[in-house]
Amino acid sequence: MKILALDTSGLVAGVALAEDDTLIAEYTTDYKKTHSQTLLPMLDALKKMVELDLRTVDVIGVAAGPGSFTGLRIGAATAKGLGLALGVKLAAVPTVNALAYNLYGCEKLICPMMDARRGQVYTGLYTFEMRSGAAEAGSEAAGTPESPMEMRILMKQCAMSVQRLADEVNRLGRETVFLGDGVPACMEALRPLLRVPYALAPSSCNRQRAAAVAVLAGFMAKQGRLTEADDFSPEYLRVSQAERERMEADEAQRELMRAGITPHRKE
Amino acid sequence: MKILALDTSGLVAGVALAEDDTLIAEYTTDYKKTHSQTLLPMLDALKKMVELDLRTVDVIGVAAGPGSFTGLRIGAATAKGLGLALGVKLAAVPTVNALAYNLYGCEKLICPMMDARRGQVYTGLYTFEMRSGAAEAGSEAAGTPESPMEMRILMKQCAMSVQRLADEVNRLGRETVFLGDGVPACMEALRPLLRVPYALAPSSCNRQRAAAVAVLAGFMAKQGRLTEADDFSPEYLRVSQAERERMEADEAQRELMRAGITPHRKE
Repeated sequence: MKILALDTSGLVAGVALAEDDTLIAEYTTDYKKTHSQTLLPMLDALKKMVELDLRTVDVIGVAAGPGSFTGLRIGAATAKGLGLALGVKLAAVPTVNALAYNLYGCEKLICPMMDARRGQVYTGLYTFEMRSGAAEAGSEAAGTPESPMEMRILMKQCAMSVQRLADEVNRLGRETVFLGDGVPACMEALRPLLRVPYALAPSSCNRQRAAAVAVLAGFMAKQGRLTEADDFSPEYLRVSQAERERMEADEAQRELMRAGITPHRKE
Repeated sequence: MKILALDTSGLVAGVALAEDDTLIAEYTTDYKKTHSQTLLPMLDALKKMVELDLRTVDVIGVAAGPGSFTGLRIGAATAKGLGLALGVKLAAVPTVNALAYNLYGCEKLICPMMDARRGQVYTGLYTFEMRSGAAEAGSEAAGTPESPMEMRILMKQCAMSVQRLADEVNRLGRETVFLGDGVPACMEALRPLLRVPYALAPSSCNRQRAAAVAVLAGFMAKQGRLTEADDFSPEYLRVSQAERERMEADEAQRELMRAGITPHRKE
């Protein structure tokens, strides 16, 4: 199964092509250009480098949110366009799950944090476990069966304050590895609140990777959890700044009217 | 510190640019083209995409072997050329260490295997540990200090037979994660020999990544363990097929001479 994966949920733009257990190509940038300037040129470069015939792609994996609203829309538009043109379905991969999957094999508490502004992060809590039922070490049988490492979701992706996240992590009381662009943004606020030992993931695995989106998209495809390109829309988890400002303005207007003042509304 | 890293030790060609805790760009392909066709075009594409001025690079990280002889020479030639032209030093990163570093945070036994042909693999044994001395979980102090995860080398990179590797892994008796192109090449032979539960790393982290070379190059730079571009040569760990055949021919000739036969030597 050949999977083309995109991640534009944060500052990173990433494209990856995977087939079964092989990552054929991956191209990632974390640069001040906007995704509308980088994503399609990166896909085009990758396509030429590995002589990809797009018609051989079976599934489009896309980091489906949460994340930057503009980033998610660029990724969604690209994934939907490709899906419709090629007649293939999309795997809508939760962004924070894919970020956690960067730490494949890590049995500490894995805490991705994406800067969601206004004192909040998009986050979740994860860990990896070797699937139980595997043969015991030291068994005398001729060989042992494979015991896959699987990612467990301990807290589903959500938007929350740094204080509440610290409370959750402290409550679980486990050694934790943090990653994501929320680390530089929020670690100064988080650090004094933490009561557990923690590490910060290095640059090789501390931001979104389309290769991780591709792996999770493959799992979803095997489970039949795919979405028609037409039906896909990103999972924002929060209302946009524009919507929030409109709601605040509406609420302010209602306050004035309750006070008997007829506001002069801007059109 | 800005690090440009290259890995051409196996079938994968990889280029990465990292600055401090940020991976600015990474480009990886695992395709049937030779590295002489892919590496410089990939570097050029990456350079343009993130508007890299090569004169701002502080260190060139290079996967220094073991690996494919031709691949290592293409990587070495490129790294030496860049180092000499830019006047910067190289960090000669052991290939198998960099492969293991893909599983940052994994406390299982990590066993990278690169297919070395003739029933052998380039391998090593590793694990990650949180640095001791960190504050205990549940401490009531205001916050806890960072406790970095560090990679421990349990067996240095080397060439060995699949049978001997199985003996080493069984002797340690720990759950193990395998990765590298030695997995498809040698797992059929290795599987019946293993007495420990094991998992196989997924495509997002089961081959060489220049981003991991960049992280290890950064550690080496901080420790002052850099090499002049002029002085660098790859670490093959074994003699090449051409050298081996020459040695075997020489040995056969000596045998004949000991038997009183003067061989007719091909020139």
